Amino acid sequence: MTELEHRTPEQEWNAWGTAEGASPVSEEVRTLIEQGLGVERRDTPSVSRSEVRVGESRLTAEVRSALAAIVGDDGVRTDDDTRLLHSGGKSTPDLLRRRAGEAESAPDAVVLPGSHEQVCAVLAQCAEHRVAVVPFGGGTSVVGGVEPERGGFSSVIALDLRLLDGLLEIDAESQTATLQAGLRGPEAETLLSEHGFTLGHFPQSFEHASIGGFAATRSSGQASSGYGRFDGMVVRLRVATPNGELDLGRAPASAAGPDLRQLFLGSEGALGIITEVTVRVHPKPREVESEAWSFPDFATGATALRLLAQEGALPTVARLSDEAETMINLATARDVGSGEQTGGCLMITRYEGPRIAARQRVAELLAEAGGSSLGAGPAEKWDHGRYHGPYLRDALLDVNAVVETLETACTWSQLAETCDAVRAALTESLQAQGTPPLVMCHISHVYPTGASLYFTVACGRGEDPVAQWMRAKRAAGDAISRSGATITHHHAVGMDHGAWLTDEIGELGVQVLRAVKSTVDPSGVLNPGKLIP
Amino acid sequence: MTELEHRTPEQEWNAWGTAEGASPVSEEVRTLIEQGLGVERRDTPSVSRSEVRVGESRLTAEVRSALAAIVGDDGVRTDDDTRLLHSGGKSTPDLLRRRAGEAESAPDAVVLPGSHEQVCAVLAQCAEHRVAVVPFGGGTSVVGGVEPERGGFSSVIALDLRLLDGLLEIDAESQTATLQAGLRGPEAETLLSEHGFTLGHFPQSFEHASIGGFAATRSSGQASSGYGRFDGMVVRLRVATPNGELDLGRAPASAAGPDLRQLFLGSEGALGIITEVTVRVHPKPREVESEAWSFPDFATGATALRLLAQEGALPTVARLSDEAETMINLATARDVGSGEQTGGCLMITRYEGPRIAARQRVAELLAEAGGSSLGAGPAEKWDHGRYHGPYLRDALLDVNAVVETLETACTWSQLAETCDAVRAALTESLQAQGTPPLVMCHISHVYPTGASLYFTVACGRGEDPVAQWMRAKRAAGDAISRSGATITHHHAVGMDHGAWLTDEIGELGVQVLRAVKSTVDPSGVLNPGKLIP
Repeated sequence: MTELEHRTPEQEWNAWGTAEGASPVSEEVRTLIEQGLGVERRDTPSVSRSEVRVGESRLTAEVRSALAAIVGDDGVRTDDDTRLLHSGGKSTPDLLRRRAGEAESAPDAVVLPGSHEQVCAVLAQCAEHRVAVVPFGGGTSVVGGVEPERGGFSSVIALDLRLLDGLLEIDAESQTATLQAGLRGPEAETLLSEHGFTLGHFPQSFEHASIGGFAATRSSGQASSGYGRFDGMVVRLRVATPNGELDLGRAPASAAGPDLRQLFLGSEGALGIITEVTVRVHPKPREVESEAWSFPDFATGATALRLLAQEGALPTVARLSDEAETMINLATARDVGSGEQTGGCLMITRYEGPRIAARQRVAELLAEAGGSSLGAGPAEKWDHGRYHGPYLRDALLDVNAVVETLETACTWSQLAETCDAVRAALTESLQAQGTPPLVMCHISHVYPTGASLYFTVACGRGEDPVAQWMRAKRAAGDAISRSGATITHHHAVGMDHGAWLTDEIGELGVQVLRAVKSTVDPSGVLNPGKLIP
Repeated sequence: MTELEHRTPEQEWNAWGTAEGASPVSEEVRTLIEQGLGVERRDTPSVSRSEVRVGESRLTAEVRSALAAIVGDDGVRTDDDTRLLHSGGKSTPDLLRRRAGEAESAPDAVVLPGSHEQVCAVLAQCAEHRVAVVPFGGGTSVVGGVEPERGGFSSVIALDLRLLDGLLEIDAESQTATLQAGLRGPEAETLLSEHGFTLGHFPQSFEHASIGGFAATRSSGQASSGYGRFDGMVVRLRVATPNGELDLGRAPASAAGPDLRQLFLGSEGALGIITEVTVRVHPKPREVESEAWSFPDFATGATALRLLAQEGALPTVARLSDEAETMINLATARDVGSGEQTGGCLMITRYEGPRIAARQRVAELLAEAGGSSLGAGPAEKWDHGRYHGPYLRDALLDVNAVVETLETACTWSQLAETCDAVRAALTESLQAQGTPPLVMCHISHVYPTGASLYFTVACGRGEDPVAQWMRAKRAAGDAISRSGATITHHHAVGMDHGAWLTDEIGELGVQVLRAVKSTVDPSGVLNPGKLIP
């Protein structure tokens, strides 16, 4: 096993990412939200650490010693600081609650297994002692996926997988790598690059999210046009459950019955703990090229993306901002040469390695479809800031604003209607609450039959900002579900999307999930309240 | 719904396909098997129809009238001819048994539902009356998938889906089509081509196999390099079960939990009856180009295919025959201009529509990897005979030979070892039985991480040819399983591969399948004995 020298730094308890990554909003952005959204100039800072109410640990001495017998004393942490860092994910409601000092729901302990076998043993003990288990990778869930719910059990542990951080095997000929689940994005890339490979999975959460989390949530990265979704990269999965283990995937493709990997991909810790993933890897590209394009409007740009996807002539990254997102990009980035862009919709294309061969054909199609090249400038600017979005959210939460994102996917023929319906639902809900929003949208994952829609919403902070956002989110989710789109393209179900899952897979589909859960987790200790309604 | 004018003709009861498609072996081939395999010159014809022992129907009058109330009197067939045509699939053992006059296992009735709702109602009645249900599309299973097993129930019906033959919807913008499950390959293509589309799914069974069967068995076609596997084409599935229906798939991709479509793809009628499939379709290509290549040996050719798949520079069809298959192709096709091919390994490439753009890069890579172009001739010859293989098998069964195929898939790094192990197991088993075989192999489905291996075995006919083949098959399956490859890449599990499924998905994986089955099919009437060991 290759040893990892540099570990991903811990995130802040009350913000996305690290303190080093954070920066306050510029005066320009502050003016923009005041003038554009009527947000009153007011500082709304987080409480300090000392003001946080971390709930008492309810872990019994008996359970503690049973767990310590497996992972060692040092592997069972019950101090407040560690529990606070595992008290939930990174959605805006999560952050708003912690910034207000609420951490009563912190887990009763954080347990750090060092091997697949220790994970199995911990699950067996938790099932026996009826202790809920919340698997914890990077803790970057934005849908309540790592909320430490006790779910009727006496206590709950966060099972932090960070010690499972090995690159177990490289098969250079087959271009596969076996990675342990606790590896964070940059750690996995560091290990793979020593062998000349990349995974090509770069979601916005890349700097902190984990391999196991990518698999358990069906993550999709910004380079999905070139490298595919994470679930599509998975060749083999090793899964620990309270009822034994599963080792699934023997070949690049198989007709040996249902593909059971697809039950555990997206299972969000409710059906098992993914401990190892064998993924397809790619030779690390030596060359990268970028080009930005402008389209007169979102519909024209979307049609251009559709033509690329349907012909199979795709860059590695293809993303299209709508008019509002393009305008905000321009307004907040006057320092970069954005060429002749004066409105319309911005499209970013990026080509890595063998995808460079497609560039000429892509450019032909984009130009034919009504696009104008803006050169590399705005695309390089996007690349530079590609993981910064969540930090900007933190900064806006400091200045009396609320910012959150949500996403969906649907067929090309339903795209405009779905986009309009979601935008209208968000606008209507937040307007009715006295905080008219700016709703921005982009397409960042394209397929021959459809695409994702990713919305960013910003508005003034209401009296109860958590309730304010939850109302808007409910309206948006209802609109998505009514339009026949999926309730989530890459954020997963967690606790926040459970209400719509029955619409999506039907009552019998939910029964099937329950039957699978009863088989692998008869006592129901795995991640209570997540995924299955 | 578009009406279908031309229905696929019925297959022969004792052979693959239609009488029109059949032709006796040439004197050349006959000499070849005599000299090459030591097969004694002897005719081994099928019995005639009048000599066949079709089992008595055990359908009770009560069940018949319950079913007739749903599908009409004409929809419940109990005559011997119809039941004989549904008495099993088209594996060599299936054909050997029927050619010997054995059809005791014919189903007790053949039921012809005309709609999704009728399928649901039939399943409810069968569950209530405890009658086993074997879904029947094209009847082309080669793994016992449509064997009319009663499985402990009093009677068994074949649920023939041929009346579900509609193209229900075309979404030209999203490039999807909704097809009913009973459509045969050519019927689906006829309907789609009226709208300018093709499905691009052309397995060797294409002329008779059905859309529902493609989905239920995870079929893969000869053009899989260009159009993908059938399971990868599926956007949405509608499934009838005794416990209600499922309608799965709302978007090109989703993170809304496990992908339940992947439980029903490959479910082989044991978890439900697929009645509708929404698939990705492609503009029908206007241009097609073909080129054959010669490689000095199988390993060199396989490496060349690996390089194509890993770079993503793929033709629509890419297949490589090993030395033995190449030699037999040459020996049996002296009439066609096979250029300078004088040994080595033959590779067929074919480019359709947008794939033509990749031809130059593919040719570069193939030449660099040691290939020599043979021009279009041998590739066009392959195209001409691409569905003829099973007819040749029938002809060989007439002349004292046994021919059968089997297939697997594994990673590139395991390919040579797996191929050698399977070839050795087959050779050893059949040699020990006094019938030394010719074992041929080709690669016809390639992926970045691995490929399929498809074996064709020919040998002299032993005393009990069914038992003879079963012994060889068992040896090959054991070798596949031991080597860590999948027991089937595109033929499915049926009854013939059940013995190895536990090796492949583990005991807990089998328990998961059983739990799903109990949920959707509590009485267990769906296709007993198939898929789940």
